[in-house]
Amino acid sequence: MKYTSLWLHQSAEGGGALVSTDASVPTASAVIENAVRELETAVPLKGEQVRLSLSGEQSLGVEGYALTKTAEGYTISACSEQGLIYGAFSLIRQKRLGLTEELSVTEVPKNPLRMLNHWDNMDGSIERGYAGESFFFEKDTIVINERTKDYARLLCSLGFNGIVINNVNVKGEACRLIDEKQLPRVAELSALFASYGIRLYLSLNYAAPVEDASVGSADPLNEKVAAWWEKKFNEVYRAVPTLGGFLVKADSEGRPGPFSYGRDQAEGANMLARAVKKHEGLIIWRCFVYNCQQDWRDLKTDRARSAYDYFHDLDGRFDDNVILQIKNGPMDFQVREPVSPLFGQMPKTNQMIEFQIAQEYTGQQRHVCYLIPWFKEVLEFDTCVLGEGKEATVRDVVSGRLFSRAAGGICAVTNTGNDMNWTGHDLAAANLYGFGRLAFDPALSAEEIATEWIRLTYGDDEKVIENVKKILMMSWPAYEKYTAPLGIGWMVVPNTHYGPDPDGYEYSRWGTYHKATCREIGVERNAGGTGYAGLYAGPLASRFEKPETTPDELILFFHRLPYDYVLHSGKTVIQHIYDSHFEGVSDVDEMAALWEALEGAVEPGAFRRVKERLDYQREHAREWRDVINSYFYRKTLIADDRGRELY
Amino acid sequence: MKYTSLWLHQSAEGGGALVSTDASVPTASAVIENAVRELETAVPLKGEQVRLSLSGEQSLGVEGYALTKTAEGYTISACSEQGLIYGAFSLIRQKRLGLTEELSVTEVPKNPLRMLNHWDNMDGSIERGYAGESFFFEKDTIVINERTKDYARLLCSLGFNGIVINNVNVKGEACRLIDEKQLPRVAELSALFASYGIRLYLSLNYAAPVEDASVGSADPLNEKVAAWWEKKFNEVYRAVPTLGGFLVKADSEGRPGPFSYGRDQAEGANMLARAVKKHEGLIIWRCFVYNCQQDWRDLKTDRARSAYDYFHDLDGRFDDNVILQIKNGPMDFQVREPVSPLFGQMPKTNQMIEFQIAQEYTGQQRHVCYLIPWFKEVLEFDTCVLGEGKEATVRDVVSGRLFSRAAGGICAVTNTGNDMNWTGHDLAAANLYGFGRLAFDPALSAEEIATEWIRLTYGDDEKVIENVKKILMMSWPAYEKYTAPLGIGWMVVPNTHYGPDPDGYEYSRWGTYHKATCREIGVERNAGGTGYAGLYAGPLASRFEKPETTPDELILFFHRLPYDYVLHSGKTVIQHIYDSHFEGVSDVDEMAALWEALEGAVEPGAFRRVKERLDYQREHAREWRDVINSYFYRKTLIADDRGRELY
Repeated sequence: MKYTSLWLHQSAEGGGALVSTDASVPTASAVIENAVRELETAVPLKGEQVRLSLSGEQSLGVEGYALTKTAEGYTISACSEQGLIYGAFSLIRQKRLGLTEELSVTEVPKNPLRMLNHWDNMDGSIERGYAGESFFFEKDTIVINERTKDYARLLCSLGFNGIVINNVNVKGEACRLIDEKQLPRVAELSALFASYGIRLYLSLNYAAPVEDASVGSADPLNEKVAAWWEKKFNEVYRAVPTLGGFLVKADSEGRPGPFSYGRDQAEGANMLARAVKKHEGLIIWRCFVYNCQQDWRDLKTDRARSAYDYFHDLDGRFDDNVILQIKNGPMDFQVREPVSPLFGQMPKTNQMIEFQIAQEYTGQQRHVCYLIPWFKEVLEFDTCVLGEGKEATVRDVVSGRLFSRAAGGICAVTNTGNDMNWTGHDLAAANLYGFGRLAFDPALSAEEIATEWIRLTYGDDEKVIENVKKILMMSWPAYEKYTAPLGIGWMVVPNTHYGPDPDGYEYSRWGTYHKATCREIGVERNAGGTGYAGLYAGPLASRFEKPETTPDELILFFHRLPYDYVLHSGKTVIQHIYDSHFEGVSDVDEMAALWEALEGAVEPGAFRRVKERLDYQREHAREWRDVINSYFYRKTLIADDRGRELY
Repeated sequence: MKYTSLWLHQSAEGGGALVSTDASVPTASAVIENAVRELETAVPLKGEQVRLSLSGEQSLGVEGYALTKTAEGYTISACSEQGLIYGAFSLIRQKRLGLTEELSVTEVPKNPLRMLNHWDNMDGSIERGYAGESFFFEKDTIVINERTKDYARLLCSLGFNGIVINNVNVKGEACRLIDEKQLPRVAELSALFASYGIRLYLSLNYAAPVEDASVGSADPLNEKVAAWWEKKFNEVYRAVPTLGGFLVKADSEGRPGPFSYGRDQAEGANMLARAVKKHEGLIIWRCFVYNCQQDWRDLKTDRARSAYDYFHDLDGRFDDNVILQIKNGPMDFQVREPVSPLFGQMPKTNQMIEFQIAQEYTGQQRHVCYLIPWFKEVLEFDTCVLGEGKEATVRDVVSGRLFSRAAGGICAVTNTGNDMNWTGHDLAAANLYGFGRLAFDPALSAEEIATEWIRLTYGDDEKVIENVKKILMMSWPAYEKYTAPLGIGWMVVPNTHYGPDPDGYEYSRWGTYHKATCREIGVERNAGGTGYAGLYAGPLASRFEKPETTPDELILFFHRLPYDYVLHSGKTVIQHIYDSHFEGVSDVDEMAALWEALEGAVEPGAFRRVKERLDYQREHAREWRDVINSYFYRKTLIADDRGRELY
């Protein structure tokens, strides 16, 4: 086995459904060919009749589909080829999940864009990759092989419609992806993904025209710069007509951007958007802009404010084919952060939420950490921008529903690589699966998604379903418990972001401080502090303003508090830290035991792989517990009220 | 200019002395040829008559020399060619220093071995190198060129008689240095150094025979292993007859060694020593053996004890051609450590002290830190092994004088690389010069040495001499002041060992902890603690046992103390920390001002180079100050009694 098939169905040439198509269906289309092949080779549909029809109801929109069961068999109807292939994968899934008896499914994806961002470099390395090397790039060339196709199938089976193939930090050969040399292969890859309804995007080096001696600038208001991009995009789209557009990380962590020329983010984004508009391309513009050269002695600057401060006032200034890509929280994918205050507060701007399923700060795929419950919380979070009682969830903001915006969506930094199992940790595949399903239908619960994934991956053994589901559902809370407490974040080893280092970022330039003394900890972010709490819509701003109304899990994010402050839980901050760290470790022990009970019920190789990682996780969770607890114990000399050993 | 000539005299073909030789002097010898060429091209000796004689007095020994002035000119006499070439360099130096009027100098080097250790890898990198890449190796091959020869001249001018060319961590192609492929070039390099009286040594991979399938072991008591080495050394010495011997890092930081086979360090060293004995080779065996997988929760294990615990009881067990190479302190080249308790406590064993002029923990040649005052302190330290009042200094231990041992000496990890100025920081060359001079004559003072180096490097401008001497003499105390306090050490960023990170090593496996709480700091190393203080000879053991008799600068090395403990200085620990850190920074400001006052008096390129580094050092010293002070302030909330700003 070169690599696992993850949740995909068993397939065999000619071993699947008998497929017929309405006259409306163009059988020569690559997407249809792929849909038909998928059905015809899907062993779970063996002997079933399946009919494809493009006369779906208008309400299905461009990407929806309907599945129905008749006496003769199943019908998949849609208004587009893309809808049909989603329907094909869906039907196979429904069949495998045993849900096809009274089948009548109508599904329309809730988010216009459902994307994955690859942080793959062209030398084959992956920034923050924890599952091997890139399967897109090797030695500065693009790789296209059977695995690439299977990856497209995997993504299509979940309903993804976009993929950024290269790292947002565009460097080295990746700068050439938009040049003659690489474009033919980009086109090939783009066509492959397009044949599964997925548009390919490229990360762009904003400073590219600087290197052209006849331009020598990236000033968005410089006409030569705009002309350079227009010409460049003409060249790119001539070679790659199916390209979705570009993702841009500008003015961030050393990347160049419009700020270098005294321009704002809208001027930068719009310049590119106008140059790509006639090709119907999108500019996805990241809001991860902050001062990464902060002096740690500076008590006033608050990195949490940055995205809001740089972007909020630009609402209405961005062109229609610009989408702002906003990280779920104001910092950087910590295990717990508040929701970014930008969501919902730029009603005249397209917004896309960026999650990270690459487990950069959540155990790097050596720890199991099922992130979907966390993403659900974020998506269901009421931004309160319509006032109290009128629901205005993040989910409805990014889907475009709330402010009737045509563009928007949801994306994640992917957790995949060329490891045999794609995701390093076998159980991390639940995050890839889960994120895709959630992006398509945010109404699904984390548990439903987990159950689906487990059944599709490990089969229908009740005990396997029960235990793995427990493991998944326990895993994110457990990780939160044994790492940095109460929303404070960042107690990790600098650079690698792995393993405990309570003061790791205290004296550095990254703007991520807890400023713990022997008496108190946290940065005060209310009106008396950095004012961050006040950036939220009224009801939220009031809630976060005072520790009394701030939820425990975020209390040290918003407030500087003494260790003996009593939380809503009734515990002091320090006792909460001790307790949660011991609990987190015992949760991991329980997770390991739940897995071990599955010996024999799970394929031996898969059993061993997960067991090894869980054994390691038990050790490493103890290391986290002991370092964090000892750090606070040494700092305070407040004993654990249950007398457990601290060092 | 490809590289600077450092302290070497100006030379010109035929521009130097008129040299004549006694009949006793073999003019065809490479060493004599080099000595004569040196004199004949030394511009400072222009027109002088110099006579070389091998009929020196017996008291000069193998390496001493005498310089005298007669009516006709100068006479250099010695009992060996090596003595003559030392005398030649010495005469030129004396002349340049203006000390030749009434010349009558007799010098015999005090240490049998005076060595440099290169941590150069064959790929060209240097472990802990801060002056560029290796000039010995490039892309897995040995480089020999004009610079190699000039390096040999530089070392000979100081009286070095040994050099280890490759990293003690022998890896990659360096394992092949004792194989057919590399030996011819090793021989060439060895001959070059031999022509300057310097013997070449190689670092050895103790596990080499493991890779030979017919042996498959490195067990020192396995006859096949011994036979393998005997054969190997025969091969090596056939190719490189001038080779001095081998340096071995075994059972250390992941390196294999005799422990892997349940043997002790003597069994390991002697096996090699016997195999190399007939070639008159030496085995230099490092004592840097400790558990680098320590659990930080373990309060009993004390890395400081390791070398003593592993080696002390083996006294008398080592063969005569084994020398134990012992780091100056029990830890690892911190800016302040006690002297290793092994010195003097193994009277039946050859001992060599290992210093580090590579500034791994002392500013990495970006900060100026003249280390000779520190080395002087260590060498003059009375080990008290003969009891109170009977001086038994480290200097007399390693020279062999104290216990009448024929072998022993002094070595340092070098600070050189292929940077244009050899040492990264121009002023770091004072450490290379100073260490060489000190190894030859430990009676020289740090100030004398500094003055010599300054005059030879920058000329005789009084202000230059005065200011640079001040800078040098202030620099080590300043570095100590603004970094980790009171002997506690290790508050550095892990791995790189550069820049402040007060808890950097607190929760790691390296055995270097301070265990600071909000009340106290330090590891108690007296009888009630780890017992380390008791490893010293009686009077020292008593002195270090109690904080009342432990010198301030080492008090946190030996004792765990509350922050309000009052030092001999009359200050509390915490106030000492604050004060010394502010002082250290103002010392650096003063050093920078002293240098700036030399503009115009020092060659502009050299002036600028040093100024740039000092400017940087001022910044970085502030960073150190603020991080360390803030760390302790946050930990204690004890205010500075002078009200200065803490963060």
